[in-house]
Amino acid sequence: MQTPDRSLDQMRDTAPLVQNITNFVAMNVMANAMLAAGASPAMVHAREEAAEFAGLAIALTVNIGTLSPDWAGAMTDAAAAANDHGKPWVLDPVAVGATTYRQTVAAQLLALNPTVIRGNASEIIALAGKDASGKGVDAGDAVSVATDAAAVLARRTGGVVAVTGQTDLVTDGTRFAEVQNGHPLMPRVTALGCSLTGIVGAFVAGQDPFEATVAALAFYGLAGERAANGAKGPGSFQVAFLDALYTLDGHDLARGARIVLS
Amino acid sequence: MQTPDRSLDQMRDTAPLVQNITNFVAMNVMANAMLAAGASPAMVHAREEAAEFAGLAIALTVNIGTLSPDWAGAMTDAAAAANDHGKPWVLDPVAVGATTYRQTVAAQLLALNPTVIRGNASEIIALAGKDASGKGVDAGDAVSVATDAAAVLARRTGGVVAVTGQTDLVTDGTRFAEVQNGHPLMPRVTALGCSLTGIVGAFVAGQDPFEATVAALAFYGLAGERAANGAKGPGSFQVAFLDALYTLDGHDLARGARIVLS
Amino acid sequence: MQTPDRSLDQMRDTAPLVQNITNFVAMNVMANAMLAAGASPAMVHAREEAAEFAGLAIALTVNIGTLSPDWAGAMTDAAAAANDHGKPWVLDPVAVGATTYRQTVAAQLLALNPTVIRGNASEIIALAGKDASGKGVDAGDAVSVATDAAAVLARRTGGVVAVTGQTDLVTDGTRFAEVQNGHPLMPRVTALGCSLTGIVGAFVAGQDPFEATVAALAFYGLAGERAANGAKGPGSFQVAFLDALYTLDGHDLARGARIVLS
Repeated sequence: MQTPDRSLDQMRDTAPLVQNITNFVAMNVMANAMLAAGASPAMVHAREEAAEFAGLAIALTVNIGTLSPDWAGAMTDAAAAANDHGKPWVLDPVAVGATTYRQTVAAQLLALNPTVIRGNASEIIALAGKDASGKGVDAGDAVSVATDAAAVLARRTGGVVAVTGQTDLVTDGTRFAEVQNGHPLMPRVTALGCSLTGIVGAFVAGQDPFEATVAALAFYGLAGERAANGAKGPGSFQVAFLDALYTLDGHDLARGARIVLS
Repeated sequence: MQTPDRSLDQMRDTAPLVQNITNFVAMNVMANAMLAAGASPAMVHAREEAAEFAGLAIALTVNIGTLSPDWAGAMTDAAAAANDHGKPWVLDPVAVGATTYRQTVAAQLLALNPTVIRGNASEIIALAGKDASGKGVDAGDAVSVATDAAAVLARRTGGVVAVTGQTDLVTDGTRFAEVQNGHPLMPRVTALGCSLTGIVGAFVAGQDPFEATVAALAFYGLAGERAANGAKGPGSFQVAFLDALYTLDGHDLARGARIVLS
Repeated sequence: MQTPDRSLDQMRDTAPLVQNITNFVAMNVMANAMLAAGASPAMVHAREEAAEFAGLAIALTVNIGTLSPDWAGAMTDAAAAANDHGKPWVLDPVAVGATTYRQTVAAQLLALNPTVIRGNASEIIALAGKDASGKGVDAGDAVSVATDAAAVLARRTGGVVAVTGQTDLVTDGTRFAEVQNGHPLMPRVTALGCSLTGIVGAFVAGQDPFEATVAALAFYGLAGERAANGAKGPGSFQVAFLDALYTLDGHDLARGARIVLS
């Protein structure tokens, strides 16, 4: 398996143009996280141009955090276009279990076989069709509870599923990896999960989806650990986190990544 | 009257799920302020799901800062659902006097009797139907000028009205409280007023609306005072403000709250 | 020509109310940049009120970063209203060359003769109708390559065109100015270009568009230089940048502006 520092270096060397259809809460911090990490984000979501732009971008991410019928249409249009062009795309099923509308839209997107799905345990379980206890957009379940659901989803889509939480789980239905990097302040800043989806999108552009997703999660979690040094709360943490995404390099990642394959 | 530190502790103990239909400018910072303070914000505004979600949340806040017909519909749907479920909801009538459209939508929401209305003096006067000098979303009037308008609105809705500015005024039409906490840098950061509405929503979840609103305003203003220590401008102030919302505890609030009942 | 410090002082003395129809990514940081600099931003974009509000505001800015048919309609409504009221307005043609939809909307706005157009070299070339290499919203061309396109556009609209990049170019078709202030970290923070458009809008309110645009660019670039001192990455840079927009005064600008007229 390619080491995570190689994945990081490759992402930075290509600075991939990644199209993101994400929610209103996440847009700014997601773009900043991706820019800091070294990618080229583009927030293009209008139905009039989403599919056309998917042909230009190297990868696509889709997040259902703040939906509307027009946006849901743009999401399926863009995902279908990414598939047509052989481009990878990442699905973030935010709070999918909370309302009927989210379930409906998420099912339409799931049918388009995302290259990677990234969610918390509640979301992955809900998406797989089992019972889950979701309290809004927070994770109500431990990551380990979602192992079976993740594997089921990965086999159903032929893609990779990442369950993120205190420790993260990544599987393609056959291989399993646990990523232990991260910090408790991360969920105290809004949209850091959504922003991670953008980082995953940048890593999977032109790389093996399983390896690239593992690398993206380790990189992101390690940046969180570095940012927590000296942070006085979620405000200063968020600032230091963007700095860490910018300064953390391949050597840091090779030393700091805590990945367990199984 | 319950002391404000008790209100803060109760809010943090329950970490209430609060649904927010707010404007595009405020979404991110409002979610971050609520997370930092200890609440569980959910930004759910699509007409397809807003009312359904209002049944799940403990409280709702509605802000007319960036309107559209779909959003206005979601606002009235969600407010009506909150009323049906006996959940408190807070109205933030941003710049209500500025355009005809805002006046129309605000009147529809006012007819649904919000548990709390939070605005600046110009907005409260405009909402009460008197003349007000509003320059965009800034307050053109001193808070004291709006005392009568606030009392009229409170009696009309049977709820609480908070007028925020250099000093804040809270009334339920019978009781009046003045909250003197705050700092002049606060209005130099966009959406801190909108974010306060979310904090009020988190405090009133399961608490007496008058007491909880007073506590929320004192907590928020005191965090502003703490953040101003060492801030070099609105950028570093905003960072320190999120940290202060996170670190300020009941003891700090008991010592630092400046509340005058009348 | 009026010196840039005079333009800055005049902007701060009047704290102009500027209406901004901008993209979802930029809204918060743009409002914060304008507040920090001393202007009064109002983010009013609903078709139901955009034109009415343009009659209240002193200036208008329009940014096509995240389009939809309703918003495009509000943009042309508001720009036409600004023209009717004799108010200046600024166009920011984000990524205009990337999709057919953007080209169509930008052409409609261009026909309304913006007082100022601010874009990167790729955008200005695309808007002028020549070939341009745009990679998403980043500038693929050096500013100097766009000199002819800028002059052509300025003469066609009767307005001012500003091409921003490592060094900036401003022209009204006759006069040309180069602004050399700025810092390489600025494009690593999302929406700082969009926010600059708001600062230009604040400066041109009631001032000569060419002189005010030059002053706005020097002020903004100088704030970037000051913010880079001690910044550890794009996170701390963005915080220090808002502080610098707030603290930088006329004396600093008179000393630090690097403007070459030709």
